[in-house]
Amino acid sequence: MKTFVDRLVDEMRKKQSVLCVGLDPQVRYIPEHILQQGYAEAESEDGREGVARAFSIFNQKIIKAVKPYVAVVKPQMAFYEAYGYWGVRAFEKTVKFAKKQRLLVLEDAKRCDGGDTAQAYAEGHLGKVSIWDRLKAKILHKTLSSFDVDAMTVVPYIGTSCVSPFVEAVKEYGKGIFIVDKTSFAPNSEIEQLQTISGLKVWQETALLVKKWSEGCEGDHGNNVGVVMGATYPEDAPKMREILPDCFFLVPGYGAQGGGSDGAVAGVRNDGYGVIVNSSRGIIYAYRKDPFKCDPLDFAEAAARATSFARDDLNAALKRAGKIPW
Amino acid sequence: MKTFVDRLVDEMRKKQSVLCVGLDPQVRYIPEHILQQGYAEAESEDGREGVARAFSIFNQKIIKAVKPYVAVVKPQMAFYEAYGYWGVRAFEKTVKFAKKQRLLVLEDAKRCDGGDTAQAYAEGHLGKVSIWDRLKAKILHKTLSSFDVDAMTVVPYIGTSCVSPFVEAVKEYGKGIFIVDKTSFAPNSEIEQLQTISGLKVWQETALLVKKWSEGCEGDHGNNVGVVMGATYPEDAPKMREILPDCFFLVPGYGAQGGGSDGAVAGVRNDGYGVIVNSSRGIIYAYRKDPFKCDPLDFAEAAARATSFARDDLNAALKRAGKIPW
Repeated sequence: MKTFVDRLVDEMRKKQSVLCVGLDPQVRYIPEHILQQGYAEAESEDGREGVARAFSIFNQKIIKAVKPYVAVVKPQMAFYEAYGYWGVRAFEKTVKFAKKQRLLVLEDAKRCDGGDTAQAYAEGHLGKVSIWDRLKAKILHKTLSSFDVDAMTVVPYIGTSCVSPFVEAVKEYGKGIFIVDKTSFAPNSEIEQLQTISGLKVWQETALLVKKWSEGCEGDHGNNVGVVMGATYPEDAPKMREILPDCFFLVPGYGAQGGGSDGAVAGVRNDGYGVIVNSSRGIIYAYRKDPFKCDPLDFAEAAARATSFARDDLNAALKRAGKIPW
Repeated sequence: MKTFVDRLVDEMRKKQSVLCVGLDPQVRYIPEHILQQGYAEAESEDGREGVARAFSIFNQKIIKAVKPYVAVVKPQMAFYEAYGYWGVRAFEKTVKFAKKQRLLVLEDAKRCDGGDTAQAYAEGHLGKVSIWDRLKAKILHKTLSSFDVDAMTVVPYIGTSCVSPFVEAVKEYGKGIFIVDKTSFAPNSEIEQLQTISGLKVWQETALLVKKWSEGCEGDHGNNVGVVMGATYPEDAPKMREILPDCFFLVPGYGAQGGGSDGAVAGVRNDGYGVIVNSSRGIIYAYRKDPFKCDPLDFAEAAARATSFARDDLNAALKRAGKIPW
């Protein structure tokens, strides 16, 4: 079984791309004709169903448009889950469709809990869940894949009790996790920034824990336990890389949140791998704004152009850093 | 509109109970006859549906059994979500049923994200989501309740950018949140325990942030922004109470995780309110173990007896502390 990072590097090489497209569907940004189509297909009286169906339709068109330029897509669970089980159904459809199109799926769910509960999250998202055999009247332990994404994000606040079950799933199922460490939002997290008595900040202490947690999760092309490292704080990326020389950084904040391409790749390894740079709104809603503004009917073409542009922008930054891997 | 804490105090007073029952359905503990019934009702080929239906059936029987003794139930989202949209549907059914039985619902989802994404979580779980009006071809902003729980848990690692949207929902919809601060798992979270240069631990710094975040969320009976404060570290509860004199502590770890009743109520306010003590496995699976062990067919009766016992156990602890509020 090839581990997550090795499948990732294969696909990145094929597409010559460190870019990841965030699939963050929001009603206010989705073209009207897609919303109309979603509601036309709805079968129930639940007003959430039409939105969820529109999300699926929208995503499938985006996925087809962007797949020449990216190895991986990152659906953000919050936007689906907001619409309850209808939304989660759209999430599952999106994952299946993306995998069929040979894209890797990195679920941004930022789950966080401990013990049994963390294990339930890990089994449901990355591993297999237990079901019941009605005829034989017995439990089939860890038998059925539920979400079956390639990788997901995890929040480390609860510590080892939270992270261990996800690490076990990484090992058992050849998956990846990205531990939320240094985020890209403004204001920057007060907790991540707290100074500890060892002279480090909390995000650096978290990185040291990630180093420990990730032992035994090595693939050929890096560690399958990575971190979230925001593009908006590029001066911290080399510090993170010092603590974690091998893993991948999932880099949010490039594009819409204001991070530039040089900052976004600031944490890249010397072999030119080690970062996945996400862009969501700047790509999937490219039709709404210059320079890709166009008729909403052509939103997918605008997304394709924006993806191609962002891929090249990041490759140019890698070239400037002298670390382009292809 | 009565705020969450005020509705909570009303119900606690009626039931004379600081206890909360955790609805944590797991295949391996659910009685066979319930699993058989769940699968018999399933309509699809998806092996997850039967489990999810069994969860709904199980929960409804538990809810009816425990409702005389508790004001609030706490479904743990991880166990539902593991079964994908089928599981989330069972979660929604459980919430609706519990509310119909006049129980408050505290969703344990421990969500954590920032900006737009945190807002999507807050709108979906506590507030209202935007939908589409097909005939008028326009967006209906924040129009439809999705999960509509009374309160939920939130993880603070990402800081203000994460917590603010939830706080806004607390104010707008009369809901509550519990910020995960000091958890009950063993080993205790390395991050929560980090020592900062101000002489405090991270969990104390988090509590100071909670104090700031909770401004303007006061109800008549306390602040609607509370914290998770594990029962397994009772010596820290008074320290937490010093920082946060008014809010409610959600106390996990009583019962199955080893915390005793005196420790569980260690953070209670002088008026006798201010803690909600959760018990999950020790109650809902009481039929499996002494002293409530019985035929699995009678699991709901065992749960009722265990709930009544735990309520009285906690009331005795409150009495010993000289702070019983009824």
